[in-house]
Amino acid sequence: MRLTTMIAVMLAGPAAGYEPLVEKQEFTLENFTTRGGEVIPEMRLGYETYGKLNEAGDNAILIPHYFSGNSHAAGKYSEDDAAPGYWDSIIGSGRPIDTDRYFVVSVDTPVNLGAHDPNVITTGPATINPETGKPWGMDFPILTIGDFVDTQLGLMEQLGIEKWHAVMGASMGGLQSYEWAARYPDRLERVIPVISSGWADADLIAWLDVWGSPIRLDPNWNGGDYYDGEAPEAGLAQALKIVTLHANSAEWTNGAFGRDWAEEGADPGEDWANDYKVVDVLNGAGAARASVSDANHFLYLVRANQQFVAGHPEGSLYQGLLDIDVPVMLIHTDEDLVFPGNAVRETGAIIKSDGTPVEFVELEGTRGHLDGVLGIAQAGERIRAFLEAE
Amino acid sequence: MRLTTMIAVMLAGPAAGYEPLVEKQEFTLENFTTRGGEVIPEMRLGYETYGKLNEAGDNAILIPHYFSGNSHAAGKYSEDDAAPGYWDSIIGSGRPIDTDRYFVVSVDTPVNLGAHDPNVITTGPATINPETGKPWGMDFPILTIGDFVDTQLGLMEQLGIEKWHAVMGASMGGLQSYEWAARYPDRLERVIPVISSGWADADLIAWLDVWGSPIRLDPNWNGGDYYDGEAPEAGLAQALKIVTLHANSAEWTNGAFGRDWAEEGADPGEDWANDYKVVDVLNGAGAARASVSDANHFLYLVRANQQFVAGHPEGSLYQGLLDIDVPVMLIHTDEDLVFPGNAVRETGAIIKSDGTPVEFVELEGTRGHLDGVLGIAQAGERIRAFLEAE
Repeated sequence: MRLTTMIAVMLAGPAAGYEPLVEKQEFTLENFTTRGGEVIPEMRLGYETYGKLNEAGDNAILIPHYFSGNSHAAGKYSEDDAAPGYWDSIIGSGRPIDTDRYFVVSVDTPVNLGAHDPNVITTGPATINPETGKPWGMDFPILTIGDFVDTQLGLMEQLGIEKWHAVMGASMGGLQSYEWAARYPDRLERVIPVISSGWADADLIAWLDVWGSPIRLDPNWNGGDYYDGEAPEAGLAQALKIVTLHANSAEWTNGAFGRDWAEEGADPGEDWANDYKVVDVLNGAGAARASVSDANHFLYLVRANQQFVAGHPEGSLYQGLLDIDVPVMLIHTDEDLVFPGNAVRETGAIIKSDGTPVEFVELEGTRGHLDGVLGIAQAGERIRAFLEAE
Repeated sequence: MRLTTMIAVMLAGPAAGYEPLVEKQEFTLENFTTRGGEVIPEMRLGYETYGKLNEAGDNAILIPHYFSGNSHAAGKYSEDDAAPGYWDSIIGSGRPIDTDRYFVVSVDTPVNLGAHDPNVITTGPATINPETGKPWGMDFPILTIGDFVDTQLGLMEQLGIEKWHAVMGASMGGLQSYEWAARYPDRLERVIPVISSGWADADLIAWLDVWGSPIRLDPNWNGGDYYDGEAPEAGLAQALKIVTLHANSAEWTNGAFGRDWAEEGADPGEDWANDYKVVDVLNGAGAARASVSDANHFLYLVRANQQFVAGHPEGSLYQGLLDIDVPVMLIHTDEDLVFPGNAVRETGAIIKSDGTPVEFVELEGTRGHLDGVLGIAQAGERIRAFLEAE
């Protein structure tokens, strides 16, 4: 299967879904102040909406995105698009997140990976710093997941929404969901963190560092100062390869590729130029993705995720989780290498310990962490009921 | 805990063990022919022995080593050594691999990682090619696990051993153990592959590629041609960091480091120069190891492991395993990210399917793959009984 086909199949939901064509919109926050106290003169970000905000303004659902994702959660930009947004299987008319009923808002984060993707609008190290007229590079403030949430708070105010009916996101989108519930418990009714846990533990911190490692070794990275020359695309491609592998499962790699060679007759035991198919496909996926992504943005995302503790409490991993008092649905899978099932269960146990209602939904599948994106439809009716509950 | 202390603690067995001081010995195979038909004029390798070969020559046990290991399996070179060989807890007078009874032979592989470690003797890309007077570099033949075994067959003949009483090794040493049993069933009595399975599946192939990825990105690597200049030590250090993390477990990283910062008061959220302790320790371990290792040797080890199918049968993953007809003891752990428990159980089921006796021993512990090295003593009495069985 060709890579583009494979990616299309990976992302494809059922044919129907959110029917109207989707348009990327944008919003700007002037003098956005980070939680660390730094000021970003202009924070410009993209977002998409599906459905309509009702008059009471109480039917809005926020969908923050995962590490390598963006605000394209549902629908298509044009009839010809190979695939709709990543959670199209649960968002649309009649679907669990029913756009006849809810107004769905999906937002690009700052330092979004796809800085050079025409369908992403973000602000980060690749953006021109209005004060210098040059890209920020590594002088861009180090952000946190809390800062991402604060940009969404800004959008919320611009849209005139007082309270989200729900916040739901996968992986890094799940971290943003926890953060909303821990930090702004009055601004949402319920929360659905998917394939994510309440803080970045040492294991995740270390693996995130491994993800970013190839970028720092690419001589083109040059300490993050590369916007005048060649981008560190080779390092970024390898970084994205690691993410893809880590977010998948042995069941997938073994089932899809086995010990096949990249080219028939080209034995990897005979020549260094030959390789295995699984490596070749992962390299191809990484390279394709690298061409629209930014290496510094990748490193900023790594650091944002490493810093994550829900609610960012000083001195306690648990306080932010205990501050959550809206109903919680945790969707996870035990085959997840990035956010293992036991970390999610521990998170849920802490939230529940002071009486907050927590429901668990365990996904089945063969794709590991990615099942939270590819396999989300199996939780559809549970999500629908959770959203509809009084 | 300081890194050196940590490594000492990681590797330390009980104080007593193999009592005599150990000396590295060496052997040479002239015109060693690889299974791929390439000739290496001089294959010079190190080995260690513990105990004495008996007159019948039937008490010898071979211990091939793991990816980042070498032939120092037991004992100390000098009284002052911080730690003995890696399996000292099970090798020695009165221990499960009882050196009063058995003659234990542990061999450095070709393309051993520690090419610049004074306690390793190996032949590989860092070695001078006698025909050119320069290091082989990437012109060194691509080797297989089968080639490693064939060097051990050469040593066996030089030592006058007809048949191993047993072959036992961990991880890549386990692959060599399978290979012995599949390829040379008449040359051993029994086999104990530890934390390893019967072939490299797509998942392992891909992860091995990830391990090597930082080396290829280091500009000093220069396509493998660096022996006249700076070695790609930064890339190699990152490669070794990934191996360390992958061979460990979340239980270890989380328990040992939590979310601690590398330096008190140096918040990773404030400055790119700051980092988390887990990352800092892994970087330190990688760098320390890189200084005595060789980057090309690392890549040759990756490719040897990727190619592995027990017995190297054409067209079948299983035939080599079915060819095994000596008793097998498989020691594994379910917390292993490198060779998952289900792959080991599948391997055992195939071997067993034609009546070959297979025993499983499951290790407990908190160190993942590494428990096959650090926690091997818990299998001690099972190993002793297996070695003593008629």
